[in-house]
Amino acid sequence: MSQHVTDVVSQAAAALDEWWGAPVERRAAVLESIANALDGQVEVLSELAESETSLGVPRLVGEVARTTFQLRLFASALREGRILRPESDPEVSGSPPEGHPALARSYLPIGVVAVFGASNFPFAFGVLGGDSASALAAGCAVVVKVHPAHPRLSRRLIALAREAIAAVDAPQDLLTSVEGVQEGADLVVAREVQAVGFTGSQSAGRLLFDLASSRPDPIPFYGELSSLNPVAVTPGAARTRADEIAKGFAESLTLGAGQFCTKPAVVVVPREARLVERTLELLIEVPDATLLTEEITERFTGAITRLTDDSHATVSISREPGAGKVSAALIESEIADFLAPGSVLRDECFGPSAVVLPYDDPNEAVQVLSVDEGVLVGCVHGDEGEPEARAFVRALSRRAGRVVWNGWPTGVAVTASQMHGGPWPATTTSIHTSVGLHAVERFARPVVLQGMPPGLVL
Amino acid sequence: MSQHVTDVVSQAAAALDEWWGAPVERRAAVLESIANALDGQVEVLSELAESETSLGVPRLVGEVARTTFQLRLFASALREGRILRPESDPEVSGSPPEGHPALARSYLPIGVVAVFGASNFPFAFGVLGGDSASALAAGCAVVVKVHPAHPRLSRRLIALAREAIAAVDAPQDLLTSVEGVQEGADLVVAREVQAVGFTGSQSAGRLLFDLASSRPDPIPFYGELSSLNPVAVTPGAARTRADEIAKGFAESLTLGAGQFCTKPAVVVVPREARLVERTLELLIEVPDATLLTEEITERFTGAITRLTDDSHATVSISREPGAGKVSAALIESEIADFLAPGSVLRDECFGPSAVVLPYDDPNEAVQVLSVDEGVLVGCVHGDEGEPEARAFVRALSRRAGRVVWNGWPTGVAVTASQMHGGPWPATTTSIHTSVGLHAVERFARPVVLQGMPPGLVL
Repeated sequence: MSQHVTDVVSQAAAALDEWWGAPVERRAAVLESIANALDGQVEVLSELAESETSLGVPRLVGEVARTTFQLRLFASALREGRILRPESDPEVSGSPPEGHPALARSYLPIGVVAVFGASNFPFAFGVLGGDSASALAAGCAVVVKVHPAHPRLSRRLIALAREAIAAVDAPQDLLTSVEGVQEGADLVVAREVQAVGFTGSQSAGRLLFDLASSRPDPIPFYGELSSLNPVAVTPGAARTRADEIAKGFAESLTLGAGQFCTKPAVVVVPREARLVERTLELLIEVPDATLLTEEITERFTGAITRLTDDSHATVSISREPGAGKVSAALIESEIADFLAPGSVLRDECFGPSAVVLPYDDPNEAVQVLSVDEGVLVGCVHGDEGEPEARAFVRALSRRAGRVVWNGWPTGVAVTASQMHGGPWPATTTSIHTSVGLHAVERFARPVVLQGMPPGLVL
Repeated sequence: MSQHVTDVVSQAAAALDEWWGAPVERRAAVLESIANALDGQVEVLSELAESETSLGVPRLVGEVARTTFQLRLFASALREGRILRPESDPEVSGSPPEGHPALARSYLPIGVVAVFGASNFPFAFGVLGGDSASALAAGCAVVVKVHPAHPRLSRRLIALAREAIAAVDAPQDLLTSVEGVQEGADLVVAREVQAVGFTGSQSAGRLLFDLASSRPDPIPFYGELSSLNPVAVTPGAARTRADEIAKGFAESLTLGAGQFCTKPAVVVVPREARLVERTLELLIEVPDATLLTEEITERFTGAITRLTDDSHATVSISREPGAGKVSAALIESEIADFLAPGSVLRDECFGPSAVVLPYDDPNEAVQVLSVDEGVLVGCVHGDEGEPEARAFVRALSRRAGRVVWNGWPTGVAVTASQMHGGPWPATTTSIHTSVGLHAVERFARPVVLQGMPPGLVL
């Protein structure tokens, strides 16, 4: 255990001790103060982010807006009692099971929370993203593990947030950070750390999950890992609006250069819709892209090469990419090959690529949608009366956290009841979400006070 | 993996497939049908339980009532929409982050749930106890691992419940069972099992938790393991009602022969209250007791022998027990010895024993209450205005799921907002409860439908 990590976590624990019992109004003030500080520096922050991520300034400006919206949503929900609402069961006289003393349920912070932000959303799922916002809303102290893809931006965000926290007279060590791979691992096993929020790869996530679970005192690890999001097109939709579907597909696939956990990854579509041809025509117009890091670029091009060499796949590239860049790729294959055990077609590929599987019989499509792996989101393009539409929605609901009708998987709305999560390997805990108001439940520990006089209630 | 376990889990999965999408009214009918079947056989079931547990028929009759109350509570909560209530965020026009499509959140069963019941509550935390009731309420299929302390009762309960399920035209494989240690382990790693509810020892619980966490697809393990529940008496309470406190202590300690996860295990009390002497006088009147199993008896007597041999403890036994029986034991020690690293005084001891720690300075008591281990419940006996009362409640709330004012830890009311859980090692997931309506949240997976027309909503 690095001494530095021990020190940082101790500072966080001390801040939490000081902050313990702070009323929800003060927590809301912290969240809003951070949001205001972000709003005040949108341009400089977006430019700094662009220099480290190449995600494009307009998209990054929008992501800051999403991030401040999210911080303010938690703040208003705290103020209005829409989250962490206390409950009470008044005393009932008589003997049990009907009779019982008065019980009052409230929510305490689970402890110091470690947050591992994502590479691909430096703001909304980063240092000050949903995990940090929901942990702070729950009253926790947060120690961020800085992502190596954008260290300068992360340091800037942390400094800015700490100032904003201090500006409303809260302990600024409520938000601290560590850097480095070993430091991240040390953080997960640090005694005072009581929960982890993680967004990243399945390999790194599994490693850290295993560390969290094998502690002498295991702690919850809320990880969003990887998701091969399926999209299904019914015969009716294919007949009436194949061009429109191709257009939506091309846009969703190349948004953020395909570096989204919600990227459409597998599309099952009637063979006669000729989706690959239609989509390729549109993808030719999309410029080649610089991915987040060299490592991600290498992994993407390596995966495309492996698929090109696979006799079961036909890879079409939208255009020849420039040096160090990538272009969109569509991989066409047959359903039986996709379903074959250990098929390389089912490996997640981070970047602008998708597998297209033509079907002749809708039951084959259902088989693809029923693959025994969880996903964050699935989509159905169809017409309301079609039996296939119903079958596709039903199959997807068994394994996805979100099912979209006549839309695309990218774009996770920040709303009260949103669900961004799903069965393994989409996330490590399928009952929780990392977006929306329910995200706060991951970091709030219920306590019931029995027969407690009002003056002693927490 | 035993073929038998594979077969049983497959049956459960098939029943779940059939039951999938059953409206909440039908789930409620299943719960009530089981409750009615239990009510119809209270006497014969209690006598069968008595023959295997020696817990006493009156207590067992009361436990059946608690169990049927619990089943009906979930049924009425389902009908009234007090649990698993769908939510919706209507469409907001405009661009994100404010604008968003319509989202509808509902809850689906997490999958097949494995339930490991407790030895000490054959009804309320057994085959048809809170874990099974909440899993069935969530719409799951349940596979019970039968506890070896009461196999005949368990088999009877399972047969009775399966008949009751079939009687309301639900698939009777919604409740099945396996027996045996290896079968239990196999159950936790069976592919279709998606969550585990467990009540038992820390050693068995940790072993199964590790199996659940190290699966290729880890699943949540909701385990209630062990808890050294603390009770603190303020100077004011000790001055004014020491006899009353001794009386409550003696009763709570010997309830169910101390075989409660909520047993008062450590009492910190002003030295001048002479709590050990006062309580011993009352314990003399309590008959010696037969514990649940020979193994539990041996572990208890072994622990008392080890404590008697420990130079830091003074063990007082209420009376000489008959052959194969045990009597209540009070272990008096000093706070510094209790706090010493690795002290045997902090080992959980299942049975009618408690450690009493006299204090001279209330700050010493706070140190005991602040030990870095989670507990299910802590109690404070005090007067409302005392600063010690506030300090004790505050310290306990940091590590307990429930804090009781002027009462004793035994007796967990079955109410909507109850919290029966706590930080490790009390439970494996401190944000969840195994008693009360919130227990259902452990087994319900949220799904959000985006832009879905009403006719296609699940």
